[in-house]
Parts: sequence; structure tokens; C-alpha cells
Amino acid sequence: MNISANNNNHGPRIKEVIITPIAIVDPPLLNAAGLHAPYALRTIVEIITDDNITGISEIPGNAAINEALESAGQMIIGKDPFQLNQIREKLTNSFGKEHISERGLTPWDQRKLVHIFSSIEVACLDIIGKVIERPVVDLLGGKLRDRVPFAAYLFYKPEGAGGKLEFKTDEHATGWAKARQASAVNPAEMVEQAKAMCKEFGFKSIKLKAGVYEPQVEIDTMFALHKEFGPDIPLRIDPNGVWEVETAIKYGRMLKPIIEYLEDPVRGQENMAIVGKELQIPLATNMCTTSFDDIPNSIKVHSEDIILSDHHFWGGLHASMGLAAICETFGRDLSMHSNSHLGISLAAMVHLGAALPNLRYALDTHYPWQSDEVIIGGRLKFEDGAVKVPEGPGLGVELDREALAALHQNYIDCGLTKRDDEIEMQKIEPGWKFKAVRW
Amino acid sequence: MNISANNNNHGPRIKEVIITPIAIVDPPLLNAAGLHAPYALRTIVEIITDDNITGISEIPGNAAINEALESAGQMIIGKDPFQLNQIREKLTNSFGKEHISERGLTPWDQRKLVHIFSSIEVACLDIIGKVIERPVVDLLGGKLRDRVPFAAYLFYKPEGAGGKLEFKTDEHATGWAKARQASAVNPAEMVEQAKAMCKEFGFKSIKLKAGVYEPQVEIDTMFALHKEFGPDIPLRIDPNGVWEVETAIKYGRMLKPIIEYLEDPVRGQENMAIVGKELQIPLATNMCTTSFDDIPNSIKVHSEDIILSDHHFWGGLHASMGLAAICETFGRDLSMHSNSHLGISLAAMVHLGAALPNLRYALDTHYPWQSDEVIIGGRLKFEDGAVKVPEGPGLGVELDREALAALHQNYIDCGLTKRDDEIEMQKIEPGWKFKAVRW
Repeated sequence: MNISANNNNHGPRIKEVIITPIAIVDPPLLNAAGLHAPYALRTIVEIITDDNITGISEIPGNAAINEALESAGQMIIGKDPFQLNQIREKLTNSFGKEHISERGLTPWDQRKLVHIFSSIEVACLDIIGKVIERPVVDLLGGKLRDRVPFAAYLFYKPEGAGGKLEFKTDEHATGWAKARQASAVNPAEMVEQAKAMCKEFGFKSIKLKAGVYEPQVEIDTMFALHKEFGPDIPLRIDPNGVWEVETAIKYGRMLKPIIEYLEDPVRGQENMAIVGKELQIPLATNMCTTSFDDIPNSIKVHSEDIILSDHHFWGGLHASMGLAAICETFGRDLSMHSNSHLGISLAAMVHLGAALPNLRYALDTHYPWQSDEVIIGGRLKFEDGAVKVPEGPGLGVELDREALAALHQNYIDCGLTKRDDEIEMQKIEPGWKFKAVRW
Repeated sequence: MNISANNNNHGPRIKEVIITPIAIVDPPLLNAAGLHAPYALRTIVEIITDDNITGISEIPGNAAINEALESAGQMIIGKDPFQLNQIREKLTNSFGKEHISERGLTPWDQRKLVHIFSSIEVACLDIIGKVIERPVVDLLGGKLRDRVPFAAYLFYKPEGAGGKLEFKTDEHATGWAKARQASAVNPAEMVEQAKAMCKEFGFKSIKLKAGVYEPQVEIDTMFALHKEFGPDIPLRIDPNGVWEVETAIKYGRMLKPIIEYLEDPVRGQENMAIVGKELQIPLATNMCTTSFDDIPNSIKVHSEDIILSDHHFWGGLHASMGLAAICETFGRDLSMHSNSHLGISLAAMVHLGAALPNLRYALDTHYPWQSDEVIIGGRLKFEDGAVKVPEGPGLGVELDREALAALHQNYIDCGLTKRDDEIEMQKIEPGWKFKAVRW
């Protein structure tokens, strides 16, 4: 039945694909897997058509992804950027099934196919939007909201700015730029971080990245935040799956009166289901249900109530709309996960977020932690914790080539080729070892 | 979170929506609910923008749907046709939840919201395609195949052409036009029907509409078809849910060696699951799982292996792509259901069929049974049982206004306002009553 399809004879064709790895300054943020390196790796993809329209995208970078992307880029030369089904089929045949199980145990996702197709799809949608003079959200059925809400994303951290300063701070910084560099290793310091971040960005929800300290310290932090911000600011906590089931139930009971949802308290769908059934509070995940292959068992055991999707590892924006259809059908909520990122990823998240039905939860973003930018006009603005949908065409953001060159130089200079938070952690805590389950 | 979205300030706006009920000649086809009337009712929707671009669609018509469509048409005046998410939200708020349970017990579907939104969405996609000069399939990610395969759809029937001729035949007809009018009330006559239809259209799969006679007669028909066409032509049978579970198991066992799938042998997801488990042959449905609300239990009990979707009652082409994502995720196949229809619906089915991943089964179509057409250039062609994806822009078919006027006059003249196969059946079998389960 699958007679191969010919391309139409008109319209643009992909002429060139440019892959540029970059390194962006990232502060020393603590998490269950260790510590963020002074630079986070991203990869910028540019797809250029024979009529010189350029589409762009941004994904989490590493040497393996970049290598695969170079190869994928060659495969799509000559293709019509509208033919995304064909492109996905071609890439699936090349990078498909063998990579499905490569997600890994870390809080971030390491699979190739979904990342590669996502980066190509978003850049093609940017091209399509430019060709038809419409914002990307209109390729997803159009926007249901003008502004997409995000949550404050708090991290425990030692003092430090990241980048060349590493664990030092820039003494000239003021406001959030200063607060971002401050130490936050206890509840009181975390409250200060939250106040500074919410003041700067206007966030109306707060998430604590947990799984770093003894659970009681993190619970104390949550209660300190609740005391400071009151009941109108929803709170969430994310131990990245390093709690035992018993730990999650014990501390979940304490947290129940003050949290909006509990994210990945434990590892694995079955354990999540046990915790959710016991606690009867909404559970969210970006670790136990991270692909369409994970969905059937998720539905069967009810491992979570909210899927924190991420178009970078769910295979793009159209696939994310498919995930939205699944969530709506099965009575799940959909929100978004984030890694350290710049404005191209943020713009894509906002276009998608504006098209999603039933968006009840503010999305995650690391964006306040980054200071670099790769788009013309500099960093995107938050108003009252939300980002306005760029008016396009396409993603509505354009590459700043000077910034791109500088960030690529950072990549070469910093010498990092993949994310490894364990090695970074050992710099401040010699001998520290990652544990999939810690408490 | 759902801050309402403003439309963009550019681009076309919907200026006018024209609803035209039509009646098309339909032969006296027998089915579990009775007999097709001499005319089938369809409704043609035209949406016109302020820059005079017209998008069209076609749905199963009846007076209630037409009335609701008139009202829906007023609601979308001034809207940007790209803003389909907003339009769906608006219609859902007006025609939504109250109509969900109105599918009814008949083989065809009677819900308003999904039909109305489908007709508006397809017409808007036709507009979008024309605006951006792309075929509708490119709005669904692009085509994975150039031709979409269909199955021969056999019906038991008394002699007759339908329309004004009713149970008489046109003596000047030749070829399939002649065979279409012939009696087919036993296995031998059905084989002749199949041979004539396959000769004319080149179909490579055959479906028998069953649930009409005692099961043994229909099983005999299937074996006669198998004997005539051999093992290379897949066969299917559809009793439209009027068999008891025991009947389905008994006759399913006989059919197992010669059928590709068994469609709706019994009524209800739980009964389907029992039959499927017992027979271990693929079951298909367009009766027990016909909406997103039906999916969770379908997955839970495994009521079918193949969902025969229908964009007219699944809520349009984008919703059908969402259904495709669900089917792919849960390991179900997706194919298509049909009612008596003309070329606008056929074109929409073909665009969708070309974009679907994993299309393993030839789609259903009643199209060979209709002789009218409402599009310029006349009836669409089948080659080797498949229809080539129209090259667009949009659906790639345009209204023939003279034909539309004549078919609308048919609607006025025939006096039908809704489909009722029971009343028609009583014309040839006085006192005949529909039974939800018959054998």
C-alpha cells in the first residue's frame, strides 16, 4: 500500500543544512545527576532552500547528536520542506528503532532520532511559515492564547556565574543578573532566589528542582516558599526520580497541602503509579513517560496525570500535537519540560504552547538562567511570567550571526562534547557519584 | 491560563458561508438498517473569504445538521480560516457536550458537532491550500503515497437504479452502469456484481456489506467470492453489529481462513473484545469506537484492531491525524469508513489517506454506487483501485454550479429530510422492522 510518493514539482527545495554547535554560559546548578557545567551545549540548525529562505531550530547538543545531524542533513538535501511525513519516514528508516531505548537514566534525554527529526521539523516549519507569511502557531491550527505562561524554575546552587567565571560572581551585576549568581544551598537562600526571579519575570508558579539534598531539607524549602508566596502561587517539586517509593509517600503526604503537583518523585511507571494512588495528588513526568512507546503502559498503570512534553524529544511540534490529542483523549494534562536553552527553543515552545488545548499548567523554562542569546534583538521578554507569541512569519526569531560565531567559539574553547553533570559535581564534591535512586 | 487569543491583523477573513442541501441518486442497497432510499442526502458547504477565495466540503446531510450548520456558519463570519483551533473551541462551546451521545444505533453516525466542525475545517483547509498554493495533503505533513487504494464495496440489492427509476433499470446503460442496477440477492449474483465493479475500477480488495440475510447466506457469498477471486484479493465482511456474539464466533471461525478482517460483527466494545479474543482474527469497526470518547475503553478492552475512521464524524482531517497518532501509539491500524458520497468527500479522504502513516488496508468507498457529481470535470477516476491525490491547490476539486443547482432541486423534489432505511425497506418488505441485533 505504501507506494512511494513523488514530490510536487513546484515550491522550494532544501539546498543546504548547516549544523553549528554552540556553548552557552550556564551557572552551576545542582540537580540529582550532579552539577551543570559552566557551559551548556546546544546545536543550532539552519536549513536553507534553493530560493534562499532559511529556517532555524535549536536542540540540546552533543557530539553524537551533531554527527548524526550532519548525516541527516545530507539526506534531506533536495527535499521539499513541506514534505515532513516523507522526511520523518526517511530518518526513521536511518536512525529509527535502534535508538529507541537510548533515553538513559539521567534527567535529560539522549535519543537521536527524535532530537534530529525535531530539529529538522522545526526549521522546516520556520521555512513554511516564512513562505506562507504566517507564524508557526498557525501551522498547528492557530493560537488559543496570545501569551504562554511559564513557571519560575528554582535550583539549588553554589555561588557562581558559570562560563569563565565558573564559581565566581560578576561584581558589577545587578538585579536578577546578580541574584542568579548567588548561593542557594538552604531554604532561606532559595526564598531569595525565588523572590528575585519572580520580581524580574513576573512568574505566577514556582518549581523547585529537588533530588539534591536530604528530602527534609527540600521539604523545608517548599514550606519556606509557601510561607513567602502564599497559597495563590502554585508550587511544584521535582526530585528527578531519586526518591524511594516510601520516601515519596512520606514526603508527598507532607507536601500535599501546599503543592500543585509532584514531578517524578520516583523512577519508573509502576512506582509512579503506586505513589500517585497512595498520595492522590497530581503527578507529572518527563522521565517515566518520554516517548510514544511509553504511552500504552502509562495509560494502563496510570503512572502520571501530567505529561511534561518537550518537542525536542517527542519528535517535533506536530508530534507534540499528536501527544496533545492522546492526553485529551485519556484525560491527561500536558505541560512542558525544559533544559538550558536560548530563544529559538523558547519561541518554538511558545508557538506550540499557544496552540495546545487545555493548557492548565505554566510551562517549565531554564531561560532565566541563561544570559547568552543567539537571536537578533537579544533575549525574549517575559511579561507577568508569560511570553507573547512571536508574530512571525515562521518562528518569528532570526539568527544573530555575530552572536552565533561567538557562541560557536565558546564551544570550541570550552572543550565539552557532551553533558556530564557527575564530572562537574566532582569538582566541588570529590568522589561524588550519580545514583539512580538516592533516598 | 486560557487567555483568549486575538486574530492576527492580516490575511483573509470569512465573509460568507453557504449551505446547500443536495440529494444524489442512490440505488436500493440493502443493509442491516434496511434499504437505501432512491436519493442520499448530502450537504455542500462553501466558505467564502473577503478576498473571494472559496473553500468547499461535503458531509452527510439531514435537516437537523443543515439547521445547525446555518447557525455555525453565522458564528464564524469574520474569522481567519487559519484559526481552526479557535473555531473548534467556539463550536464546541455551542454544539459540544450535549450532542456527544447522539451517535444512534444505525450504521451511520448522527452527531452534530463533529460533522459541523469537519465540514468547516475541510472547507477552511481548502481555502488555506488555495491561499498558499499547496494541496491539502501538504497541510497534513505531505504525502507518503501518490495514490490511495480503495476496496470494492459490495451490497445486496434488489434490481433498481434508484433516483426516479427507483426499482427499475435504465435499459441503455452498459458496463458497470448496467451492473450497478442489477439484482444481487444471492451468492451468484453477488459474484457478478463484484466482477463488474472490479473490472471497472480495478479494486484489489473486496468488502461485503452484510447483516442483511441469514448469516449462512452471507458466508456462502464470501466463499463464492473467494472461489472467484482467489487468495490474492483480500476479503472483508461487515454485518453492522447485528450478529449475536455466538453467531459471530460460529461464522467467524468459518470465515477465518478466507478473510482479511471482520468488521463490526457484534454491537458494543465488550462484545467485540470477546469475539476478537475468541477468533484471533483482526476486527475492524466504525460502530463501536467512533469518537475520541470511545478510545479509552477501546484500548482497555481491545475491542478492535482496525479503526475505520471517517473525517466527517471524527471531527475533520487534523483530528483524524490525531487519531492516527493514537492508533500508531497503541498498535492499532487505521483505515476509512464511507457513506454514499460525491467527489468532494472523496478528494478529502484521498488527501488524508495520502498523509497517513502505516496505511495497510484499502479504504472503503460507496463512490462507485453514485452516478451524480458536483465537481467540475465530472467523476474522479480510479486506476487499479486507487485514486491519485489531486494536485491542488486545496482539495483540488471545484464546484460545478450547474450540477449543484440540479442536485439541490433534487433535494427539494425528493422530499427527504433525513436518512431512514427502515421506511424504505418497508416499501419492499411491508412491516419490516430494524433490529439492533438480529441473528
